[in-house]
Amino acid sequence: MVESAPMSEARSFSIRVRVYYEDTDAGGIVYHATYLRWMERARSDWLRALGERHDAMAGQGLQFVVSEVDIRYRRPARLDDLLDVDLEVLEVRRASLRLTQRTRGADDGSLLADATVRVAVMDRHTGRPAPMPKRLLDMLGAP
Amino acid sequence: MVESAPMSEARSFSIRVRVYYEDTDAGGIVYHATYLRWMERARSDWLRALGERHDAMAGQGLQFVVSEVDIRYRRPARLDDLLDVDLEVLEVRRASLRLTQRTRGADDGSLLADATVRVAVMDRHTGRPAPMPKRLLDMLGAP
Amino acid sequence: MVESAPMSEARSFSIRVRVYYEDTDAGGIVYHATYLRWMERARSDWLRALGERHDAMAGQGLQFVVSEVDIRYRRPARLDDLLDVDLEVLEVRRASLRLTQRTRGADDGSLLADATVRVAVMDRHTGRPAPMPKRLLDMLGAP
Amino acid sequence: MVESAPMSEARSFSIRVRVYYEDTDAGGIVYHATYLRWMERARSDWLRALGERHDAMAGQGLQFVVSEVDIRYRRPARLDDLLDVDLEVLEVRRASLRLTQRTRGADDGSLLADATVRVAVMDRHTGRPAPMPKRLLDMLGAP
Repeated sequence: MVESAPMSEARSFSIRVRVYYEDTDAGGIVYHATYLRWMERARSDWLRALGERHDAMAGQGLQFVVSEVDIRYRRPARLDDLLDVDLEVLEVRRASLRLTQRTRGADDGSLLADATVRVAVMDRHTGRPAPMPKRLLDMLGAP
Repeated sequence: MVESAPMSEARSFSIRVRVYYEDTDAGGIVYHATYLRWMERARSDWLRALGERHDAMAGQGLQFVVSEVDIRYRRPARLDDLLDVDLEVLEVRRASLRLTQRTRGADDGSLLADATVRVAVMDRHTGRPAPMPKRLLDMLGAP
Repeated sequence: MVESAPMSEARSFSIRVRVYYEDTDAGGIVYHATYLRWMERARSDWLRALGERHDAMAGQGLQFVVSEVDIRYRRPARLDDLLDVDLEVLEVRRASLRLTQRTRGADDGSLLADATVRVAVMDRHTGRPAPMPKRLLDMLGAP
Repeated sequence: MVESAPMSEARSFSIRVRVYYEDTDAGGIVYHATYLRWMERARSDWLRALGERHDAMAGQGLQFVVSEVDIRYRRPARLDDLLDVDLEVLEVRRASLRLTQRTRGADDGSLLADATVRVAVMDRHTGRPAPMPKRLLDMLGAP
């Protein structure tokens, strides 16, 4: 199918992050909640790359909220490490997405943490689930 | 059994937290990674109440690290909210604990987020799992 | 003067904070930006004690923003430390306050950091300075 | 002087940052302490570009600590903004540096915040000031 390549491209993404002091804790390793911040950066950059800006969605009274995170920490990252944080879409629903997100060492690709994340679109005024912008659903190959 | 009451007390704990600006994001709600910070505060205060200080463990080259978090966000918390963050021990192993941790509104007890968390003891020098202090295992009623 | 005691009370405040992993960095000490978070907590609790809630102000389209911080770090705080973070009003203007804020060890009162902070009231829609609620100005003894 | 160009290059630096949800607060703008995190990233990347890694310094028992920050917030940054955070060395002493650090909009160069920051080298074991690595002092043109 002609669109398969772009659709597949739209469904995965990766960013590179550096570990700074702000990301670490007195245990000498990256604080466990930091990985959630990095994964959110990856999702934001991915949505921006797809043309969906948070501020445009906010203008329509919509925002993505995280509804589930299942994360396994495999090996600690440390100050100054360079990491790749990726995402891959597992499931597209009308009002939510489920993704897998991995954090790896940029040098050797070793797995540091892997997570499954569900993000849902919420109507800011009602606090209720709302459908995703149709353009985004189409790009993600929603049925 | 004589020890059942204290043992049971040792296995659950709760702290109260206030939502400050630092905890929120531009979506007008509490940032999702903030709940992990609060849950860690509850675990730290609980261990301190049991007589296990992070610095004493560090003196033995040991530290707790989070190895798994499965969290479901049920309802957003907002600036100025007062919340209760609790924990209950689900499973005690020689080198790790599994807990359930809930965040509730302090006024009405409504559930905001619930999580299952595994923390493991790590040897800071080798990065390998290490047994928990025996005193702590005893207090938690380890077999 | 009859009101001098309450007025003076309204102009100073203190909170107690515990140092958790989230507050520290891989240097083994409290991350320097953490003190700003604690000082903000002290200001929020102080305003709440005076009856000014952030959400009520937001309802009027107003919010406090930090416009200046001058901070000196004297001695590092560490994991598990118990600290007192205080504030004292130095100057009251129609649309801003200048405060001094100190962080001390709770056990010995030793000074860890001291800061001068200016907070200004901003109109959320225009982004421009706005006068403080009159009730607050009165409580702070504004001329 | 022959070395003036490289020396001058060694004394200024800039990084580009994106504003993510983690950086903002419920006021809809960037949380004020976030600027300190960004300025620290700029200093870390700058030191790395000069060949001074935090972990190598830590191996010698040394670390940079922030001893003073004077910051003025001029205009709020918002979610999705792209910003430039720079630094320029104002003063080089044997055991400390004073820098000016500005945060600007990447599109129009408009000033959001400007700060003067002092960082000092601390001996991790004694907690006392320690001289900077000689190589770094030379690169910064210390007398």
